[in-house]
Amino acid sequence: MAGNSIGHVLKLTSFGESHGAALGGVLDGYPSGIWIDQDLILAEMARRRPGSSRFSTQRQEADKTEILSGVFEGRSTGTPIGFIIRNSDQHSKDYDALKDVYRPSHADYAYHQRYSIVDHRGGGRSSGRESAVRVMAGALAKMYLREKGITVNAGIRCIGSVRDTGTVFNTGTPGPVPALDPTFIPAFEAEIDKARMALDSVGGVVECRIGNVPAGLGDPVYDKLSADLAKAMFSIGAVKGFEIGDGFSLAGMLGSQANDQMEMDGARPSFITNHSGGIQGGLSNGEQIILRVAFKPTPSISQVQHTVNASGQDTELVIKGRHDPCIVPRAVVVVEAMAALTIADHLLMRDGYGKA
Amino acid sequence: MAGNSIGHVLKLTSFGESHGAALGGVLDGYPSGIWIDQDLILAEMARRRPGSSRFSTQRQEADKTEILSGVFEGRSTGTPIGFIIRNSDQHSKDYDALKDVYRPSHADYAYHQRYSIVDHRGGGRSSGRESAVRVMAGALAKMYLREKGITVNAGIRCIGSVRDTGTVFNTGTPGPVPALDPTFIPAFEAEIDKARMALDSVGGVVECRIGNVPAGLGDPVYDKLSADLAKAMFSIGAVKGFEIGDGFSLAGMLGSQANDQMEMDGARPSFITNHSGGIQGGLSNGEQIILRVAFKPTPSISQVQHTVNASGQDTELVIKGRHDPCIVPRAVVVVEAMAALTIADHLLMRDGYGKA
Amino acid sequence: MAGNSIGHVLKLTSFGESHGAALGGVLDGYPSGIWIDQDLILAEMARRRPGSSRFSTQRQEADKTEILSGVFEGRSTGTPIGFIIRNSDQHSKDYDALKDVYRPSHADYAYHQRYSIVDHRGGGRSSGRESAVRVMAGALAKMYLREKGITVNAGIRCIGSVRDTGTVFNTGTPGPVPALDPTFIPAFEAEIDKARMALDSVGGVVECRIGNVPAGLGDPVYDKLSADLAKAMFSIGAVKGFEIGDGFSLAGMLGSQANDQMEMDGARPSFITNHSGGIQGGLSNGEQIILRVAFKPTPSISQVQHTVNASGQDTELVIKGRHDPCIVPRAVVVVEAMAALTIADHLLMRDGYGKA
Amino acid sequence: MAGNSIGHVLKLTSFGESHGAALGGVLDGYPSGIWIDQDLILAEMARRRPGSSRFSTQRQEADKTEILSGVFEGRSTGTPIGFIIRNSDQHSKDYDALKDVYRPSHADYAYHQRYSIVDHRGGGRSSGRESAVRVMAGALAKMYLREKGITVNAGIRCIGSVRDTGTVFNTGTPGPVPALDPTFIPAFEAEIDKARMALDSVGGVVECRIGNVPAGLGDPVYDKLSADLAKAMFSIGAVKGFEIGDGFSLAGMLGSQANDQMEMDGARPSFITNHSGGIQGGLSNGEQIILRVAFKPTPSISQVQHTVNASGQDTELVIKGRHDPCIVPRAVVVVEAMAALTIADHLLMRDGYGKA
Repeated sequence: MAGNSIGHVLKLTSFGESHGAALGGVLDGYPSGIWIDQDLILAEMARRRPGSSRFSTQRQEADKTEILSGVFEGRSTGTPIGFIIRNSDQHSKDYDALKDVYRPSHADYAYHQRYSIVDHRGGGRSSGRESAVRVMAGALAKMYLREKGITVNAGIRCIGSVRDTGTVFNTGTPGPVPALDPTFIPAFEAEIDKARMALDSVGGVVECRIGNVPAGLGDPVYDKLSADLAKAMFSIGAVKGFEIGDGFSLAGMLGSQANDQMEMDGARPSFITNHSGGIQGGLSNGEQIILRVAFKPTPSISQVQHTVNASGQDTELVIKGRHDPCIVPRAVVVVEAMAALTIADHLLMRDGYGKA
Repeated sequence: MAGNSIGHVLKLTSFGESHGAALGGVLDGYPSGIWIDQDLILAEMARRRPGSSRFSTQRQEADKTEILSGVFEGRSTGTPIGFIIRNSDQHSKDYDALKDVYRPSHADYAYHQRYSIVDHRGGGRSSGRESAVRVMAGALAKMYLREKGITVNAGIRCIGSVRDTGTVFNTGTPGPVPALDPTFIPAFEAEIDKARMALDSVGGVVECRIGNVPAGLGDPVYDKLSADLAKAMFSIGAVKGFEIGDGFSLAGMLGSQANDQMEMDGARPSFITNHSGGIQGGLSNGEQIILRVAFKPTPSISQVQHTVNASGQDTELVIKGRHDPCIVPRAVVVVEAMAALTIADHLLMRDGYGKA
Repeated sequence: MAGNSIGHVLKLTSFGESHGAALGGVLDGYPSGIWIDQDLILAEMARRRPGSSRFSTQRQEADKTEILSGVFEGRSTGTPIGFIIRNSDQHSKDYDALKDVYRPSHADYAYHQRYSIVDHRGGGRSSGRESAVRVMAGALAKMYLREKGITVNAGIRCIGSVRDTGTVFNTGTPGPVPALDPTFIPAFEAEIDKARMALDSVGGVVECRIGNVPAGLGDPVYDKLSADLAKAMFSIGAVKGFEIGDGFSLAGMLGSQANDQMEMDGARPSFITNHSGGIQGGLSNGEQIILRVAFKPTPSISQVQHTVNASGQDTELVIKGRHDPCIVPRAVVVVEAMAALTIADHLLMRDGYGKA
Repeated sequence: MAGNSIGHVLKLTSFGESHGAALGGVLDGYPSGIWIDQDLILAEMARRRPGSSRFSTQRQEADKTEILSGVFEGRSTGTPIGFIIRNSDQHSKDYDALKDVYRPSHADYAYHQRYSIVDHRGGGRSSGRESAVRVMAGALAKMYLREKGITVNAGIRCIGSVRDTGTVFNTGTPGPVPALDPTFIPAFEAEIDKARMALDSVGGVVECRIGNVPAGLGDPVYDKLSADLAKAMFSIGAVKGFEIGDGFSLAGMLGSQANDQMEMDGARPSFITNHSGGIQGGLSNGEQIILRVAFKPTPSISQVQHTVNASGQDTELVIKGRHDPCIVPRAVVVVEAMAALTIADHLLMRDGYGKA
C-alpha cells in the first residue's frame, strides 16, 4: 500500500532513505503564479539542519534542495514541483553492528515484520531525515499562505521536566533552542545538556499557532480540519500526543468554563475566549488555531540496553553513531511545515485551482 | 470536497442529519464470507443509544439499523454494505429559536461560513447522532477482527476533575457509566450529576486498548497506523486531544525511561515494557495498542450564554432541548468503532481482498 | 479494496444488488444551495426504467428514489446526499437454476473467482440495475451543470448492423429508441425486434455531447478530463469501446487533416474544426465535447449455450427470466449521467466548494 | 488539484517538464524483495528513446534513469522508489516563437486557460517526454509481474491508412516500427515516410495483450479492471480511442455471436472464444486480456497552419523544431507500461503487501 503521500488536493509525495543517494518529494496541486522564495527555502532548511549546535546530531548535511520541475522564470506553473536533497555525510559503517539488532523503541522490529528487507543504515526510511522533505514542502506551502495573509509559527513549550505552562508566544528568539518564552531557554538547554551528558535523551512539547485562517475551512465528519491536522502531526516521527486548544485540559472542565462565547467586534462576529483553539465542529472559526504536539525522547541512546536480534537471541546493545539528544528543537519547523501543508490543502479545497 | 469517507481499502462513507429522514452509511471493501452477527449489532447500537439513563439526552431513538446490501444468506458477499438508521424522535421545533443564533462552541458559526445553507435542526450534519453510523460500521469491523483474534475495548479514565490514573482495565462492568476501574463509577456518576443539576456539562477521557494486533501493520511516513488512528479519533465530534502509549507523559521522560527494551519470550521477541503503546515508527509492534481520547464538555448547556446571531447582533441564549450532560459514556463505543475500522483497514491493506 | 466510489471532489458511492432490499448511493461533495428538481429526477429515472416498452426487460420497477439527507427546504446543503431505490419486482426463483452455472459473457465466473460468495439472483452486484444509482446521481449533477449553462445530451448512433455515420444530433425525439437521427428509428427498432424474436440480443453505440464546457478543465497527465471520462464510461456494464472526437478514425488520418486550426471569433479564440472532440492535451478547449461508447449485446439470451458449472462440469444452458434484447436504449441516460458527474467533478475541482 | 498520480495501491507520481532540469517519478506501494533488473530498464527506455531512427524526433537524449531510493543491495525494499531522468538536449530557443501562439491540436490553448503561466518550451508538462517516467515505472511493474508469470506485450496494428486486421501477434520483431505482423513493416514504414516527407504526420493503433492474468482481478462497478485500463491508456498523450476484446465491433454483433461460451479444459474452466478480451463484468476471467489504443497524428507538423495568439490575433504558424512524424512506434512501450502498472496495481490490491 502506498502510504507516502499526504493531502487531498495539495498532495506531498515523499521518498528517500537516510543513507541512500537522495531524499526527495513531489508537491502536486500547488497553485500557479506563486513567487518561489529561495531565501525562505534556505532559512527553513537551516532551522532543521543537523550539526549546527551541540543539541543536535553532529551529522553534517548541507541539505541543499534542488527543484527539478514546476517552476518557470521564478514562479510556480501549477504543475508538480519535484525536488531532491542529496545525502552526503552518511557514516553507514556505524550501522553495521545494528543490521540485525532491533534497537529499543525504534521502528526496527516492526519494519522487519512489515518488509522483510530493510535498509538498516541510519534508520533507512524510518529516519528523521525524511522530515527534510516536509520542511521543503512546508516552505512552499508557506509562500502560498503568505500571499493569503496566513501565518504559521511554532516553538517549544516543554523539554523533559521543564514545562512552560504560560501563554507567551515569542517566535522571534534566535538560537538553537527556540523556546516560546525566552526566559525558559536556559532551563531547556540545561535539560538537554543533562540528558546528553548522561548518554541519554529527552522529550518535549511543541506548540504551533496559525493566524488569519478564514472561518469555515474544513470538511465535516471525517476530513475535519482538526482530524487532518492530527494525522499530519502524528505522521511525524516520535510524536505520541496531539491536542487542539485547551486539549486534554478540556476533559477536566465544565461546559460553562470551556465554551467560547461570542460577541460582535464592530461588524465582525468574534469569540470572547479561544478554548477551542480556533476549530469547532471540525471547521476553523476564524480564531487563531492553537495546537500542541508531544515528542518522545529520541530512542537512540548510548547506554547499555537489552534487546533481541533477528536470529531470536537476547543481546545487549550500545548504540554508537551520531544522535540528537533531543529532537524537539529541530522538530519545531517540521511541525510548522505539516501545519502549513494542511491549511494550504484545505484552503485549496475551498478555492479550487481556478481561484488560486 | 467530499469529506464523508474514511479508510484506505475498507472505506466507510456516511450520510444523514440529526432531524432528516435517516442516517446511513456504506462500508465498502469489507471482506466476503464474514458471518454478520445481528446480536453484536444490537448490542453495540444499544451502548450508544440515547435516552437510556439520566446521564444522556432523553431523545428516544430505537436506532434500528437496516442492512440493504452486501449480505446474502447471513454472510457478507464482499460488495458494499449499505445500511440506514431512520430518525423517529425529532423535536425539530425545539430548534426554531436557534435557527439564526450561533450556539457557543458548537459548529454553528463555522458551518454557516462554510455552507451558507445549514439544516440547523438538532445540529444537522454536525450532530453527534452521526456517530450511530460509525457504531454500526464498527460492529461490522469487529466481526471481521474477531475472526482474526483481535480485540478492541474501551472505557472511561476521567470525568471532569475525577481522574483515574491507574491501569486497571476492566471493560466488563455493566451500567451507564463504563469506568475502566469500577471503583470510580460512583465518583464519575457524581461528577456528571453535579454538572447536570447545575444546568452544565462536563468532559472526560476515554482509553482504548486493541489486543492481538500482529506486528508490522501500518504504512511508513504519512499513513502510519498511529496517524490514521489520530485522524479517526479526531474525526469524532468533541474530541480535542489524542495520545498513544504514555503520550504526553513521554515528553517529560528520558530515553532510558521511555524506551521499550526487548527480550525473547521463548521463541517470540517481546517487549519488557509498553510505553510506546504498541506502535513504533508508525507500525504496530505486536504489543497491546493503547490510546486515549480527550472529549470536551458538551457545548449545549442550559445556562445563559452570550453570543451573536446571523444578523450580526449580540444576544443572550439559553439552549433548550434535550442534551447529554456528558457525552463521554456514550462515546466509549464510538472510540472502539473508529479503532476497529482503522485496524481492520490496515489489516486488509496487508492481506488484500484475496486472503480475507 | 473499495471500488464502489467514483469522482475526485464530487464523489458517488454506490451500493445494492439486483434482488436485495434496495440499491442506493451517496453523492458527496455536492455544492450547497442547488435547487433539487424532483421533476428532473422523475424524468431521468423514467428514461432508464425497465418494462416500459418491448425493447427492454419486462421487470416492473417504479424506481422511486428516496432522498434521505443533504437537502433542506428544497435545496442542497452541501452535506452528502444519501438516497435509496427499493427493489420490488424481483423474481429471484428465476435464478435458482443459475446459482452454480456460469452464464457465458456474464460476470459469473470472474465473480466467483473474486468473491467466493456471490448473490447470484439477477446478477447481484454486477446487475445493470446498479445503473439506477448512476442515473439518480447524474440527475443531481445535471441540476448543478444547468446553473452553469452546461448541457449533456446523448442518443443512439448504432444498433447492431445499422449504423448512423452522420452528424445529425437530435435528442428531442420521444420514444423508446432515442436515435440521434430520427430517420434511423425504424431501422434501429427493426434490428432489436429481429434479435428479440430470434431469442438473441444486439449491441450498439451511444454518442454523447457536452456543450458550454469552459476551456481549461481537466488535470494534466493522469487525471486528464478524457481519462476520467474514459474510466467513467468503461465503468458502465457491457461497455467495450470508447472514443473522443473522431476517435479511432484519427488513427487513419494525417496531422494536416486531424488538426483543429484556430481563428478569432470576434474577441474569442475559436476552433475551425472539432476533430479533437473538445479535449486537447487532456483538457477541455471550450468546444463541444463529443464522445462515443460501444456496448456489447446483452449476454443473456434464450438460446442454448454451452458452459460449465461451479462443480467443474460441462453443461448446456438456456437462460430464462426477463432480459433486455438490447441494452442500448436504456443506456443512453446512463452515459449522460456518467458524463455529467465527470464534468461536474472537474468543474468543482476548478472552483472549490467556496465558489459553488 | 493533484492529477499527477495514478494507481490505487501501486501508485505512480510523476513530475517534470520537457525542457526543465529533469523528469522523475515516485513509484509507491511497490512490493519488497523484487530483484531490480537494470538491463530491463535500459532495454525498455531504449524502446521509447528519441532520435534512434528517421521515424522519430531527432532530439538526442540518453534517457538515463537514476534510482534514488527504495532499492537496497539490488532488491526493492517496499519503500517508495524515487527516480529521475535528466534532460540534456533541449533546444529551448526553437520554441521562442511559439511562446504566445497556440499550436493547433496541442494543449497550448487549454493550458493557458488552466494555468495562466505555462512553461512553453517543448510543450512543458504536456510534452510526450513525460512518458519516459511511465516507461521506467512500467519496467519496474514488469519485473514484479514477471515473478508472477504475467506477460505484457504490444505492437502496431495500424499506421494511417494501412490496417492490419489480422490476429498475428509477433512482438519479437526487431526494428524501429514494431508491427505485430512483420509483413506489414514495409507498408507501415512507407506510410510514415510519406507523411514525413510531406511535412505531415500520421496516427495509428497499438494492440496490447496481457497473458496469464488470474481470474477475478478487478473491483466491481467503478474500479473495474477495464475502467482502470481505459483511464490508464487515455492518460497517455494523443490517445483518442480505446477498446477491449472485439471492442467497437461488438456493437455490431448479436449476443449469440459475441458471447464467449465455456467448456472444461481438463479440470480448468476455459472459454471457447475470447470476444470479451479477457474481461467480463469488469473482472479478469483468466483469458488473455486484449486491448487496442488509437493515437491521433502528432499535432506538430511543418506545414502552414492558421491559429491565434495569446493577444487575440489571427496568425499563421509553421512549427519548427524536431518532431515525431508518427508517435505510434515509440508509444508501443508506453502502452505496455500503463498496462503493466494497472495489472500490478490490481494484483497488489488482491494480495496486499503482506503476500508480495
